[in-house]
Amino acid sequence: MRKFDHAILAMSMTLAIGATLATAAAQTAGSYDELAKSEAAANAENGKRVAPAKTMGNPADEVSPEMEAIIGAPYPPHFNADPKTAAEWKELIERRAKLSIANLPAMKEKLGVKVEETKIAGVHCFIVTPAKIPPENRRRILVHVHGGGYVFGPGEAALPEAILMAGFGGFKVISVDYRMPPDFPYPAAMDDAMAVWKDVVKRHDHRRIAIFGTSTGGAMTLAMVLRAKDEKLALPGAIAPGTPWSDIDKLGDSYASNEWIDNVLVTWDGWLGRAAKLYANGTSLRNPYISPIYGNFKGFPPTILTTGTRDLFLSNTVRTHRKLRRAGVIADLNVYEGQSHAQYQVNVNAPETKEAFTEIAKFFDKYLEE
Amino acid sequence: MRKFDHAILAMSMTLAIGATLATAAAQTAGSYDELAKSEAAANAENGKRVAPAKTMGNPADEVSPEMEAIIGAPYPPHFNADPKTAAEWKELIERRAKLSIANLPAMKEKLGVKVEETKIAGVHCFIVTPAKIPPENRRRILVHVHGGGYVFGPGEAALPEAILMAGFGGFKVISVDYRMPPDFPYPAAMDDAMAVWKDVVKRHDHRRIAIFGTSTGGAMTLAMVLRAKDEKLALPGAIAPGTPWSDIDKLGDSYASNEWIDNVLVTWDGWLGRAAKLYANGTSLRNPYISPIYGNFKGFPPTILTTGTRDLFLSNTVRTHRKLRRAGVIADLNVYEGQSHAQYQVNVNAPETKEAFTEIAKFFDKYLEE
Repeated sequence: MRKFDHAILAMSMTLAIGATLATAAAQTAGSYDELAKSEAAANAENGKRVAPAKTMGNPADEVSPEMEAIIGAPYPPHFNADPKTAAEWKELIERRAKLSIANLPAMKEKLGVKVEETKIAGVHCFIVTPAKIPPENRRRILVHVHGGGYVFGPGEAALPEAILMAGFGGFKVISVDYRMPPDFPYPAAMDDAMAVWKDVVKRHDHRRIAIFGTSTGGAMTLAMVLRAKDEKLALPGAIAPGTPWSDIDKLGDSYASNEWIDNVLVTWDGWLGRAAKLYANGTSLRNPYISPIYGNFKGFPPTILTTGTRDLFLSNTVRTHRKLRRAGVIADLNVYEGQSHAQYQVNVNAPETKEAFTEIAKFFDKYLEE
Repeated sequence: MRKFDHAILAMSMTLAIGATLATAAAQTAGSYDELAKSEAAANAENGKRVAPAKTMGNPADEVSPEMEAIIGAPYPPHFNADPKTAAEWKELIERRAKLSIANLPAMKEKLGVKVEETKIAGVHCFIVTPAKIPPENRRRILVHVHGGGYVFGPGEAALPEAILMAGFGGFKVISVDYRMPPDFPYPAAMDDAMAVWKDVVKRHDHRRIAIFGTSTGGAMTLAMVLRAKDEKLALPGAIAPGTPWSDIDKLGDSYASNEWIDNVLVTWDGWLGRAAKLYANGTSLRNPYISPIYGNFKGFPPTILTTGTRDLFLSNTVRTHRKLRRAGVIADLNVYEGQSHAQYQVNVNAPETKEAFTEIAKFFDKYLEE
């Protein structure tokens, strides 16, 4: 009767998981009406939204084959990485950096961009220069703060976005190689970025400078303006926070609605949330220099935001957009069909990559002084 | 042994539903690492995204209590309605119309708006006039095409959005009570809207006229501009398609990603898709006057689009936005945190309702001639 016992156990489990199983079974069995009934029952309570397991294909239209391959890719192997020591973090960081650096020669070649190392105010930086800078951009300069959850993207691994912006936009870019955990938690990254900012505004008219960056770099872009305001420094003429990590905690609707749908970050509960805590290092996750959504956006320069419909940070982006608009700031929002987190900067050959950076470049051209 | 047989059957079913069940069980059991493993396995195939069943609360921040109540409400009872006859459709349409009409007196009162019936070019219309029209809006006029999946919103039931726009924006609005299925499928609705448009541009400078509408009304707004272009008529000075049903078929990523998460439309497979087929009545769902996403947006007037992160039509909206931008059109996009389909127009007292209509009014003020 051993088999019988197991079977009974299986039945009990089935009963225990209740509506969720009914939903899964109904969906798998293909009975839409059963599913509709069970979902209606599961969604009868105020303030609680329940959705069944789902299987999606690639977006149907207006997505290039290059972007479709990116959108349809499996989860990255490290999405649930859980490094226990500084050494384990460094091994993971190093492994991912190599992947990023491997793409650089082809990108530089395609976009005709050169890269030089330098130090600004003691901070290691890269100067990224396109072969052709149009006349209106000759006196303009962009400051780049890279993404990577405050842990990834050290050194040259930070360069892809800077190269895309320099190449597609025709701008000279200073990319800040700020210090990061595990060795340097908050506020090292922000201190480095601000040291560079202070130096750059001494040597250039601030109205000709923009700050940009994606994900963590988007949050830092916003936090830099908050700090510049607080420290009475000159503000940039425009900013482009791409899908900013504006709430570093798991707060915001798309952390739930796009969980397991975004194939880049996948979930806050993997490496991402672990990096958040490693970076904050005990400082409140609601500190506006860490989660800029809690800052005061009044007086911000014109801002262009970018995200995708599957992005885990869709809410981070639209919450930022709305808060800027409520503060009376000029703020543009571009949301790309089907894209998960920051996929507009993965492949230099995807038309959507050129499109996203061209939108940002046009925005800078509109709002920066010549 | 009857019980045993059933238990074996339960086990077989369990095996049959495979990964989906594993996911549901893992999630219910609360083992995050188990879930992460099973999801990684389920997402190992290119072009296929699998997400487990999920339970979400209300959005955490920047959402008013009024909007939170709307976002957290159960599914509407009719989401899976399947009327089999014209009489059954009419009964459902009438029942829903009464709910809409019941709200009108309080809305009119609060916003100080009056409504008069009229006929324009033989089409039944309402003239919606706010008590105060600011000087810059005195010669401007808005044409409103209501939402409701081409079946809902007959007569006065169409008025809530027109009243909100007139009241919050300070504009005179003509709301078109176009003919609908089951009696009048495509192209009756579009023919009525175009008849009104032709008459209105005869009597007013087209640069002082905007067209707006939400959902079906958003699609009709876009389709009216397409038809005006094709028929060499004057174009409006600006348009505001709110979360437009720009692809009437189940094409677009958020039809899947926000299915069962949007608590207004819930799924295309309910009444919505049935209404699509009833309306098209055999005409291709890819006809640009039915699914305007397949039209040519070149030469379109400045356009402002509105949607929410949980909106089943998030992709309809952002696909439209991107296609407009690619055609070189001035196009603004506003996406509201946590909102399902068209929830920015449900409660006249929600701050987000005022915010959405004020954004649209400012956009019209910027682009319409005085």
